[in-house]
Amino acid sequence: MTYHDYPLFWKEAFEQGLKEDQVALDWTTLASVLHPEHIATARLIAKSAGVWVGQGLAQLAQIQASAMGVTVEFRSEIVSGTSVDAGTTVCTWKGPAGSLLLFERTFLNLAGFVSGIATQTRNLVRVVEQAGLKNPPRITHTRKTLPYYKDLSVLGVLMGGGFAHRVNLSGGILIKENHITAAGGLREAILGAKKNAPHPLRIEIEVRDEKEFTIAQEAGAEIILLDNFTPAQVQKTLSLKRSPTLIEVSGGISESNLRAYCLEGVDVISIGSLTHSVKPLDLSLLIQD
Amino acid sequence: MTYHDYPLFWKEAFEQGLKEDQVALDWTTLASVLHPEHIATARLIAKSAGVWVGQGLAQLAQIQASAMGVTVEFRSEIVSGTSVDAGTTVCTWKGPAGSLLLFERTFLNLAGFVSGIATQTRNLVRVVEQAGLKNPPRITHTRKTLPYYKDLSVLGVLMGGGFAHRVNLSGGILIKENHITAAGGLREAILGAKKNAPHPLRIEIEVRDEKEFTIAQEAGAEIILLDNFTPAQVQKTLSLKRSPTLIEVSGGISESNLRAYCLEGVDVISIGSLTHSVKPLDLSLLIQD
Amino acid sequence: MTYHDYPLFWKEAFEQGLKEDQVALDWTTLASVLHPEHIATARLIAKSAGVWVGQGLAQLAQIQASAMGVTVEFRSEIVSGTSVDAGTTVCTWKGPAGSLLLFERTFLNLAGFVSGIATQTRNLVRVVEQAGLKNPPRITHTRKTLPYYKDLSVLGVLMGGGFAHRVNLSGGILIKENHITAAGGLREAILGAKKNAPHPLRIEIEVRDEKEFTIAQEAGAEIILLDNFTPAQVQKTLSLKRSPTLIEVSGGISESNLRAYCLEGVDVISIGSLTHSVKPLDLSLLIQD
Amino acid sequence: MTYHDYPLFWKEAFEQGLKEDQVALDWTTLASVLHPEHIATARLIAKSAGVWVGQGLAQLAQIQASAMGVTVEFRSEIVSGTSVDAGTTVCTWKGPAGSLLLFERTFLNLAGFVSGIATQTRNLVRVVEQAGLKNPPRITHTRKTLPYYKDLSVLGVLMGGGFAHRVNLSGGILIKENHITAAGGLREAILGAKKNAPHPLRIEIEVRDEKEFTIAQEAGAEIILLDNFTPAQVQKTLSLKRSPTLIEVSGGISESNLRAYCLEGVDVISIGSLTHSVKPLDLSLLIQD
Amino acid sequence: MTYHDYPLFWKEAFEQGLKEDQVALDWTTLASVLHPEHIATARLIAKSAGVWVGQGLAQLAQIQASAMGVTVEFRSEIVSGTSVDAGTTVCTWKGPAGSLLLFERTFLNLAGFVSGIATQTRNLVRVVEQAGLKNPPRITHTRKTLPYYKDLSVLGVLMGGGFAHRVNLSGGILIKENHITAAGGLREAILGAKKNAPHPLRIEIEVRDEKEFTIAQEAGAEIILLDNFTPAQVQKTLSLKRSPTLIEVSGGISESNLRAYCLEGVDVISIGSLTHSVKPLDLSLLIQD
Amino acid sequence: MTYHDYPLFWKEAFEQGLKEDQVALDWTTLASVLHPEHIATARLIAKSAGVWVGQGLAQLAQIQASAMGVTVEFRSEIVSGTSVDAGTTVCTWKGPAGSLLLFERTFLNLAGFVSGIATQTRNLVRVVEQAGLKNPPRITHTRKTLPYYKDLSVLGVLMGGGFAHRVNLSGGILIKENHITAAGGLREAILGAKKNAPHPLRIEIEVRDEKEFTIAQEAGAEIILLDNFTPAQVQKTLSLKRSPTLIEVSGGISESNLRAYCLEGVDVISIGSLTHSVKPLDLSLLIQD
Repeated sequence: MTYHDYPLFWKEAFEQGLKEDQVALDWTTLASVLHPEHIATARLIAKSAGVWVGQGLAQLAQIQASAMGVTVEFRSEIVSGTSVDAGTTVCTWKGPAGSLLLFERTFLNLAGFVSGIATQTRNLVRVVEQAGLKNPPRITHTRKTLPYYKDLSVLGVLMGGGFAHRVNLSGGILIKENHITAAGGLREAILGAKKNAPHPLRIEIEVRDEKEFTIAQEAGAEIILLDNFTPAQVQKTLSLKRSPTLIEVSGGISESNLRAYCLEGVDVISIGSLTHSVKPLDLSLLIQD
Repeated sequence: MTYHDYPLFWKEAFEQGLKEDQVALDWTTLASVLHPEHIATARLIAKSAGVWVGQGLAQLAQIQASAMGVTVEFRSEIVSGTSVDAGTTVCTWKGPAGSLLLFERTFLNLAGFVSGIATQTRNLVRVVEQAGLKNPPRITHTRKTLPYYKDLSVLGVLMGGGFAHRVNLSGGILIKENHITAAGGLREAILGAKKNAPHPLRIEIEVRDEKEFTIAQEAGAEIILLDNFTPAQVQKTLSLKRSPTLIEVSGGISESNLRAYCLEGVDVISIGSLTHSVKPLDLSLLIQD
Repeated sequence: MTYHDYPLFWKEAFEQGLKEDQVALDWTTLASVLHPEHIATARLIAKSAGVWVGQGLAQLAQIQASAMGVTVEFRSEIVSGTSVDAGTTVCTWKGPAGSLLLFERTFLNLAGFVSGIATQTRNLVRVVEQAGLKNPPRITHTRKTLPYYKDLSVLGVLMGGGFAHRVNLSGGILIKENHITAAGGLREAILGAKKNAPHPLRIEIEVRDEKEFTIAQEAGAEIILLDNFTPAQVQKTLSLKRSPTLIEVSGGISESNLRAYCLEGVDVISIGSLTHSVKPLDLSLLIQD
Repeated sequence: MTYHDYPLFWKEAFEQGLKEDQVALDWTTLASVLHPEHIATARLIAKSAGVWVGQGLAQLAQIQASAMGVTVEFRSEIVSGTSVDAGTTVCTWKGPAGSLLLFERTFLNLAGFVSGIATQTRNLVRVVEQAGLKNPPRITHTRKTLPYYKDLSVLGVLMGGGFAHRVNLSGGILIKENHITAAGGLREAILGAKKNAPHPLRIEIEVRDEKEFTIAQEAGAEIILLDNFTPAQVQKTLSLKRSPTLIEVSGGISESNLRAYCLEGVDVISIGSLTHSVKPLDLSLLIQD
Repeated sequence: MTYHDYPLFWKEAFEQGLKEDQVALDWTTLASVLHPEHIATARLIAKSAGVWVGQGLAQLAQIQASAMGVTVEFRSEIVSGTSVDAGTTVCTWKGPAGSLLLFERTFLNLAGFVSGIATQTRNLVRVVEQAGLKNPPRITHTRKTLPYYKDLSVLGVLMGGGFAHRVNLSGGILIKENHITAAGGLREAILGAKKNAPHPLRIEIEVRDEKEFTIAQEAGAEIILLDNFTPAQVQKTLSLKRSPTLIEVSGGISESNLRAYCLEGVDVISIGSLTHSVKPLDLSLLIQD
Repeated sequence: MTYHDYPLFWKEAFEQGLKEDQVALDWTTLASVLHPEHIATARLIAKSAGVWVGQGLAQLAQIQASAMGVTVEFRSEIVSGTSVDAGTTVCTWKGPAGSLLLFERTFLNLAGFVSGIATQTRNLVRVVEQAGLKNPPRITHTRKTLPYYKDLSVLGVLMGGGFAHRVNLSGGILIKENHITAAGGLREAILGAKKNAPHPLRIEIEVRDEKEFTIAQEAGAEIILLDNFTPAQVQKTLSLKRSPTLIEVSGGISESNLRAYCLEGVDVISIGSLTHSVKPLDLSLLIQD
């Protein structure tokens, strides 16, 4: 998929970042920098290896600076989605020293967060690739995303080589344990969904064991999520699968145990920590006189 | 400090979470739950040990549900800031099953994030306490916070026993490396700040070695941040300190090496990862019929 | 599907309506009504037959009035989704006369619009029912909805007995003529979608004739939309259909020709005019002293 | 009046349309279009005759695309307010294929709505013109407009050759039946308004019969709205009119019966359906490779 | 006119005030008040004589506090629009000490501003009353209001006994010097307005001398604003006035020279300083243990 | 301090001004100006002497006009912060006559307000300068600012030569009378603040007499605000001061009595009226054909 890092993705968060940081009243810069209008350059450096996602943010920051009446050039040196080594200059800035300082923290906080998601996604995708399966599973996110960061989190996952899951409650059907309880049964829940759900959506359900898997498959679930299964349980369940049921595996999967879940027949592996436990890419800005 | 977990803190993020998740068009619940108006109860359980911060969110969720025309009771069983063991029920919900499902993900994502910050903060605070110093340093956050999450991040730190640093650019003076470059020198930057900065703010500057420390102290810096110093360098620098200079240590400090920085004379230890690399508290909602 | 008319749906549009109508500076009421605080009652009457959708709005208006510091009771006399005869009192209001007048136009404009959508949907659903098919097609909306009115339009369709289609671009895959042009071919577009689209979504494509239908089915499209087909063309195409392909019919279908498209094998009939050419339910408010 | 179609009118609705359609996560385009960056052109065609209003929107869309970091040229081929035949290309677009697809639905929904209002207005204005009166009445809108669409509805009416009525409650005095009830009488209401209303506003009142007309005129109403009068009743009432009272006629007037209300002495004919029962101009976008 | 001080007027500004003051991070209160939950009472005292306008704000603050999860009682002791002596307790508050302190500054800033407008308006109205004219002129505001404060400024003027002028550009016609320049002449401007302006609005024009007055009156202006006339010029111009032309006087009128403009035949005196040079009512909050 | 008048400061208020003035429906211009597209020039003239602050607004207005699809050139003839004589042209505009008229009132209201604050600040700063002290006190604002105008008020003060105080509750510690009451004592409040307040902030407290001053100084207050002291009381208190306590004087200080408070040893004089009782700079726009 040709996925593009549009400035649009970053707009609201970047504006909010500048606002809540009160950049117009940056006393440190105002008080200590004698010639804020002096044109300086700055290099944004990745201090650890990872996947850079910030091209759209650089484009946005330049547009935003202009809308604020400041001429600053933000140039991403590298296409978003590219793996970079530690020490790489990913972006260069040029503009009035006083203005560069205003944007520093907000830019780094945002680019680091999304690049961090992409980095961790790519790490996992590589584990899958190394498993050498004929039909390797997709790595996807879950709905464990922070408010305001849903789209940026999806962007990070796609840039790292992962795929999208449903992005919100209207974008997919996923019957989980609590729905089953409220629906009065797994079979009842599936039948209700088949009857009522919007036709563009497949019916997906979460099961806790092989018995539930069989009921779900018979009731017509199109995607079955094996929740918190051990690799062995997954393997056993795959033998019960009849085409064209899609198999998604989730729950407690991380870089350390992912390899064991890379089994022929698993279509999707969804991983909450991709978006809820983000370790940002370490970025540093160096202003040069 | 008697710090209160006000519902106000959570309002915007919670509303945004519900909105971006398109809860009004939750096809799964609408299609699969036959009797959404059935009154159900649910328990929110901490699946790992940590510090619970969610009392204000529970209060807010109840107010918000009411403003949406749904009567749901959200009761925090535990005061925000309390350490809980794995398996503890931290909150109970009661209301129409269909409505409980709407709030689940947004509530858990937010409470997990802030509780995660509090949990990690408390872990670090305990390391400091165990050092048994006469004047133990404060643990504080930095400005490495995600846009929209500045206040909630500070809330998490305070609830975990940490202290606040400046929350934005108008709330403190901190002259960093890039300011010094732009100002044309460390001494020049401090003198500018002393002359121009708002009088309610102390003058803080970041230094890279002992030589800079000495210049900074002589120029009148009130707080000096030792950036990326080893414990040995810190120890050596402390011998140069003259009252009433405050010493802040920062850069690469984590749970694993914090103990070594707990030295008599260090006033503040600020830690970026507290708010930029959050591991959320693992929370799970269990609806009971 | 038990679809509920939540106040939440109406909140933003109702608040905006009051704001843009400048209700706080309603000179007519302020200047001509001597005793605006006099408690009056008012009946909201459907002047033509149709489907009432306004229960959630009544609940919201009461909440909103209270948030504005006015005590007004808005009581929907009838459950949203109910068919009513001309002359039915659908809602009663009670409160200070001056305040009732503030809410009148905004309330009627909104309730009339959504009730109008529901009314027209039900008319079409009845045509389908009267066709007496074993597997009657669903009536659905399209994406031809006004900005700000997407969710309310879907609400109206569901309340009238219709079903939801995708509500936005992330909630479904629908490859249309322009995508095929941009993708370089129908087959290429489907293969791209199968490879890249989020797994919770079925692959739907729009075709212009039987030849395209066959290509689409063979390429693996799960839903095929027959665009601007005559009933005869639809009938002919149905003979080419292989299970489990879903058939959607769209383009130029209205109450006058819908009956002819009610053919066994048609799964979905989507109708743009349901939401783009709305004739509101005629509502009138009568204040009684 | 030289009325200009400013981009400003469309800004909020267009931005909201793109947002609620989740254009950044348009899976169909992302998944099926292999080369979204390929520069394509597209023609926007009016499929039925009508009045085109979309010049300002084209200008705005270009500005908005640029703010989103995409270079797309939107060129209105025709001045807003021009009558066009079916088949006319009203606008041409040029830009990356993937981006054109993002804007399609939102642009068409909005331009179609406002052009539809203009089209219907012009139809009515022509009926009036054909009546060949010496002092032909104005066609105006009412306050029956959807929240968020007040200004755009007025734009459509003006572009079609109609005139503006008051646009909100602070922009005019119109004493209606419910005010009269609340004021305790028609005469009392008028006297209150004369005493209290802002001086830039004329005093208008709605009457139900000739008796009320006479009372209103004597009490000093400057504009009298004859509500739901038959043409014969209007004619009879006109004989009672004394200069300079302005006569407005309203209630149940449509294209089919408008001619009969075109009477010498009628100054204004206001028509709710112009803005509450809009049939959009049928627009279609054709992307060409 | 029975003008009511609705909480609605204050909502946005009050919320903004709390937000921009960062009340959730009020370090002073958090750090220094040991028992913020202690229930305290506070009296809001007018330290100088004036007109109190704050009943709606008190009501709003209580609603707002509740929405923030804090129970605070705000009770206006006096009806908005009442003249009070220095030393009067206008409002009492009761609630947790820590919460009272959050609201203090925002509440006082807003109530003081609007009460200050009302106070100055009443002073001017009294000057007019003391002139003892048979048909005393109205005192009105102009459009010299700060963004965000238009409605609150009008509220203040009405509460002080003044009247409203047009509140924005769509709520009245006022042809000023610059319009005349752009229109190519005073007469041309009036004729254009008569032909094109919405019929609910009277045509008003600003003139600079008697010659212009005569042209304006002959061209059909309904309201003529005498701009920067001396009392003697006004007197002379009044002799040229023919019924029913309304006369408005404006430009450089203040408490010191208003008396001289109180002439029989002047209908309206509009005063920019009422809203652009506000001296707030001096209010002080005293928390009692 | 090199303080820059960024367009950013004015953005929200300017946009709101245009919106609430309903510039798109400016009936006067639309109806009376025959050729609104005619390119005109206009001069903005200061009618009284003062300090001009509007360079950033001019830059913003041009950006904003462009975003609205109108090409208007706004050129500030003078750098913000410059003192100007009555009659000076401070800004020139060039663009379509109809568009210039839209911006007039909003621009003048805003620029007048901020320039008025700067003017009054400079008047006071000059009084201080004329006192000829060796260490002259700073003039600062207080938190008596209108919601939405906090930053613009600070801008005005800085442009006039004043200094910033804390801009909100998280940006400084200032223990006032009500905090002392709630804390149970002056000493207790200071000790709490020293223990709990963020370390970048100095501890400031307000005292009412010399006795309180002594307690505060002994308890470790770093800044002591002498509230409502007479010059004689200030003089006496200064003799009790021990380095490095900072002395701030506030309460009832205006241009008429400021000179008496200019005493060696006073560090800060904060003046509420600078921002709560603003007399705007008198600005007038003259459109030339």
